[in-house]
Amino acid sequence: MQEIKSYICGEWKSGEGAETELHNAITGEKIGSVSSKGFDFAEILNYGRTTGGEKLRKMTFHERGRMLKALALYLLDNKKKYYEVSAWTGATKGDSWVDIEGGIGNLFANASLRRQFPDLPYYVDGDPAMLSKNGTFIGHHIMVPKEGVAVHINAFNFPVWGMLEKVAVNLMAGVPAVVKPSSVTSYLTQVVVEDIIASKILPEGALQLVLGSARALIDNVTSSDIVTFTGSASTGLKLKSNPVITENNVPFNLEADSLNAIVLGKKATPDTPEFAIFVKEVVREMTTKAGQKCTAIRRVFAPEELMDDVQEAISARLSKTVMGDPSVEGVRMGSLASPDQVKEVREKVEELMQSQQIVYGDMDEFDVTGAEKHIGAFFPPILFRNDNPFEKLDVHSIEAFGPVSTIMPYKTIEDAIELTKLGKGSLVSSIVTPCNDEATQYVLGAASMNGRILVLNEECARESTGHGSPLPLLTHGGPGRAGGGEEMGGMRGVMHYLQRTAIQGHPTTITAITQVYQQGAKGNEIDEHPFKKYYEELNVGDQLITESREITADDIDQFAALSGDNFYAHKRDTNFEGTMFDEQVAHGYFLMSASAGLFVDSYEMNPVLLNYGIDNLRFTKPVYAGAKMHVRFTCKEMIPNDTTPKEDDPKTLIKRGIVKWLVEMLDEDAEEPLVGFATILTMVKLKDQSDK
Amino acid sequence: MQEIKSYICGEWKSGEGAETELHNAITGEKIGSVSSKGFDFAEILNYGRTTGGEKLRKMTFHERGRMLKALALYLLDNKKKYYEVSAWTGATKGDSWVDIEGGIGNLFANASLRRQFPDLPYYVDGDPAMLSKNGTFIGHHIMVPKEGVAVHINAFNFPVWGMLEKVAVNLMAGVPAVVKPSSVTSYLTQVVVEDIIASKILPEGALQLVLGSARALIDNVTSSDIVTFTGSASTGLKLKSNPVITENNVPFNLEADSLNAIVLGKKATPDTPEFAIFVKEVVREMTTKAGQKCTAIRRVFAPEELMDDVQEAISARLSKTVMGDPSVEGVRMGSLASPDQVKEVREKVEELMQSQQIVYGDMDEFDVTGAEKHIGAFFPPILFRNDNPFEKLDVHSIEAFGPVSTIMPYKTIEDAIELTKLGKGSLVSSIVTPCNDEATQYVLGAASMNGRILVLNEECARESTGHGSPLPLLTHGGPGRAGGGEEMGGMRGVMHYLQRTAIQGHPTTITAITQVYQQGAKGNEIDEHPFKKYYEELNVGDQLITESREITADDIDQFAALSGDNFYAHKRDTNFEGTMFDEQVAHGYFLMSASAGLFVDSYEMNPVLLNYGIDNLRFTKPVYAGAKMHVRFTCKEMIPNDTTPKEDDPKTLIKRGIVKWLVEMLDEDAEEPLVGFATILTMVKLKDQSDK
Repeated sequence: MQEIKSYICGEWKSGEGAETELHNAITGEKIGSVSSKGFDFAEILNYGRTTGGEKLRKMTFHERGRMLKALALYLLDNKKKYYEVSAWTGATKGDSWVDIEGGIGNLFANASLRRQFPDLPYYVDGDPAMLSKNGTFIGHHIMVPKEGVAVHINAFNFPVWGMLEKVAVNLMAGVPAVVKPSSVTSYLTQVVVEDIIASKILPEGALQLVLGSARALIDNVTSSDIVTFTGSASTGLKLKSNPVITENNVPFNLEADSLNAIVLGKKATPDTPEFAIFVKEVVREMTTKAGQKCTAIRRVFAPEELMDDVQEAISARLSKTVMGDPSVEGVRMGSLASPDQVKEVREKVEELMQSQQIVYGDMDEFDVTGAEKHIGAFFPPILFRNDNPFEKLDVHSIEAFGPVSTIMPYKTIEDAIELTKLGKGSLVSSIVTPCNDEATQYVLGAASMNGRILVLNEECARESTGHGSPLPLLTHGGPGRAGGGEEMGGMRGVMHYLQRTAIQGHPTTITAITQVYQQGAKGNEIDEHPFKKYYEELNVGDQLITESREITADDIDQFAALSGDNFYAHKRDTNFEGTMFDEQVAHGYFLMSASAGLFVDSYEMNPVLLNYGIDNLRFTKPVYAGAKMHVRFTCKEMIPNDTTPKEDDPKTLIKRGIVKWLVEMLDEDAEEPLVGFATILTMVKLKDQSDK
Repeated sequence: MQEIKSYICGEWKSGEGAETELHNAITGEKIGSVSSKGFDFAEILNYGRTTGGEKLRKMTFHERGRMLKALALYLLDNKKKYYEVSAWTGATKGDSWVDIEGGIGNLFANASLRRQFPDLPYYVDGDPAMLSKNGTFIGHHIMVPKEGVAVHINAFNFPVWGMLEKVAVNLMAGVPAVVKPSSVTSYLTQVVVEDIIASKILPEGALQLVLGSARALIDNVTSSDIVTFTGSASTGLKLKSNPVITENNVPFNLEADSLNAIVLGKKATPDTPEFAIFVKEVVREMTTKAGQKCTAIRRVFAPEELMDDVQEAISARLSKTVMGDPSVEGVRMGSLASPDQVKEVREKVEELMQSQQIVYGDMDEFDVTGAEKHIGAFFPPILFRNDNPFEKLDVHSIEAFGPVSTIMPYKTIEDAIELTKLGKGSLVSSIVTPCNDEATQYVLGAASMNGRILVLNEECARESTGHGSPLPLLTHGGPGRAGGGEEMGGMRGVMHYLQRTAIQGHPTTITAITQVYQQGAKGNEIDEHPFKKYYEELNVGDQLITESREITADDIDQFAALSGDNFYAHKRDTNFEGTMFDEQVAHGYFLMSASAGLFVDSYEMNPVLLNYGIDNLRFTKPVYAGAKMHVRFTCKEMIPNDTTPKEDDPKTLIKRGIVKWLVEMLDEDAEEPLVGFATILTMVKLKDQSDK
């Protein structure tokens, strides 16, 4: 039988013997075997930290992002192959789409995050902290890549997504990965990794794949590494209690299955569109991936008066779900991942039957289309009903990891909140209601025990991504039983692989470290006007002190007339008693406009292409007629701009970067000259317009 | 002997017997005893979660912040008492200042954070995530108070600061605390808690104090609780390995002592001011609190050619440090916290003597001023020298928790970085250098293994808060040996006590939940102009659709003339070939100003007091002469403004709130009307100007 090889220390290698045999979930055919016996795990980890890590840590976020984008495009080109292999796991085409294209989508999403990161290997977090009276001592935070490796122990249900959603994030952070997929479906992960390695898009050592047992992997981690685990709470607990993890304070992110709930709002009566939306969502969550999702709906709460309607509607819809070989036309639900899973789910259903009754489905009597019922890992949808959910408590703790859910009644929204919390922490819950007040009450009450809450109504249902889908821009993970971990969530996820370090010193020092100009730092006096410089010629800290201009009462009058802004404070004849001003005050918008008049270089076609916005504009002191104002104008931050050029739009072909400028508006007061400040955002042309 | 009582479940109570006797560190006199024997710990925790938690969770961040401010002012009034008791711990007046006023400072700093939080019990985190093409389905994140209790197991060295820096944060988050200080100095913590309880400023149940053993406290935590520990790595490990913690995925924040380093830069030769700054910093860190600080400098790295200069200068300065009874004039260093600590530090010094030599100080021969040498817990400053720090490795792992440091040579900055990392994770390190390039190289190289890095030079030294001081606005905690925890850091710290929950739905639903208007949500059409409404009369979502105005070429010319902004793109006769525009384009600043002309209500003295700034202004499409523009103007967010009124400034007496408005600038394009958007910030008068 074929040995499926691991990719470690730069080569494809198989372990000694065959630890585990892998089978097609539909046909039972043998696929191959995996083993990690004899691997030198300390060497594998060290290879990642050095060979892969050293290269990744030197790359900037923008370079890493472009690398992820290239990888996503490459995998998309090869996706046909993955769909073929995915069918062996019992997945329908729809299930495979979530796994394969959902996984690749995570690469794209993380690649796009680069625009929110600097073009540096490290990130500058938040705002500076003012720590001194005279401003010579400030604090800030940087986040640098951890110098270890991300060890991912993944679950069997999403062999592609499970890997890609995690490595997209650690690679973006500049940290290499060792991926250990669950053996049962690891042949699919391996096919994808084979392509990734062959593409040579990632630096060597950035990704290693270990098939087979991984205990010894954990035994060799250090405090620089990060371990993540997705799977059952019991295995997760075993891994995170390993003394190597606890003694070295190794960050361990646990994401465990949970008893996720959906609530039908009291206002979502059968005559509302929300009732049908609810039924559809429940059935979709029960049958997608044959219910093998850590986010699947296990507990269904309905207003007590609607229990019978709910039972009938869900049963009716379930009865239309055709189970069988996913390659056969019309099949809507595939098999579980293996006969072992069938056995496990059956055991849990039997446990649940002690305290509640099945109202739809039969574990023995069911139809299978296009496959042999007792060879494939088939398990039919089972709907339970539990009319005493505050007393019959098994439903809140026993999870059958298949197409199994329980409907239960509640009286008030407060009760529904209490009931969802009996799950002791969930990845996600949903409420379906046309009433935003009811939704708000539920969300605020249930949030402390749920990592994500979806509110479904008629307005959003068409575009909703559904109860079961963790999304790259939203955090995934939940408290308590759900593991207490947190991953993804856009930039938040990347930060789990970075060390946050507070830095303190003089603003000039903090500018040098962060590459972001800090107020109070020494500027670079430059001879030329900064608008005359191309992107490559500019440096953070380049500074212009402008001429000064007087703000006259006529100016204010004219500005009011031109803009139409005749707010009372800008008029000469206002009675200023009881207002915030002493006399006619200049419009803030005029101060900003007059500042532009001072700092903009107007004499020729210079490399500045446009000003596309302003951040953090503040007016700190009123400016009255007669004041003289000038601007200190400093290059604050520079970020590449790699928008994809479109041949039919010449404007997109101009190569440029983003330059943020600090505008400090100053009057002639010797003590407190600052009247306002802002960060303006410009695009500046590159000198080098060649294609590289 | 006096039993020092705990404050639990609303009463002052002592345990059975006397588990631990407490003594004055200088005179050896008995102070009292503590015991928690017989306490019902499950009840204590539950009392916190219910009695205290229910009240705190309902309060808004602004209410909690004002409560913290009141508490800080109250404690400041009573500080004399704390200084008296603090002297019994062996602390000098300076040491006590850090502990007492530093602790109260944390209350003030966290109180001020309220301005960055909404006036709601929960927080809206980050920006919305666009999850759909047509904008009917979006995501966001809220953070709600965890419904448990914060259990703080604190160290002996800062009995006041150690409690206040932690409870300031959990109270701001809306989470109650149970504080268990280290017994040896717990009499001081108790004096402060006595005042806090007597003040009735906190809701009952928000703060409980357990003196004596706390093992059973940990045995009763649940997944809603948060445990923090500050102290030795070994005790921390024992606590966090408790199955109750691991099985319930209880967040556990560990902050352990570490082998913190300071580096003298290669450019900081003895002729530079930085050399003296360095020597002063080392000696201060060795002697403050008699070296009993988790952030104290244990390892001192100097360029090899400067080792003798460094040894000489540090020794000379140490020789001027007078140790003794802190109440005696001239004494600069007090005692350790107890004779047990003396024994422990001596043992560690003896261990270190196996691999390196003492170059200053003698454990047996030393002077004590104003106290009995063998009765008080005195231990003299000891300076080691280790010339082979890459080979003699004990110095990187054995910590003597007293006035003990080791000087070591390095060749290159790369070597210095490697050496600091041999500590396997530290809370803090410092570099002293006049050269920002050297500083940057060190910081970026060492950051992955340090929670905080201070760069000292002549420019910032006067205002520097020093190597040893964790600050409320900067994160505190470090990776690896330092515990892997993170606390404080301004708003970041508060988030450790909140559950982050992703929420998904239609923008109108997300607006209802977050109380922040989301683009695409249904607005409230109102009859009156919103500028005519007082703060109390406004609601998030109140919306005005303005008239429209034409932007003419004359307008653009006039705006250029008035502002002085004659950028080429705003001129009629520019050759637009190769630019981002097709013809004369309106200034972004003019669009913003013209928008103000459209949305500002100009007819009377209305309740809007002023516009103090703009956030997130973006121009999304060029506007050419002839375009017609109008504004959709929506109340986006409302925040109270409780600036302290000053009697001599009538403007500060006007009661007001902050209102943020979303400005959407629209042209007549049916498909893509948006030309720009911004959030403008105004202050709006309250209708009720009475003092309540």
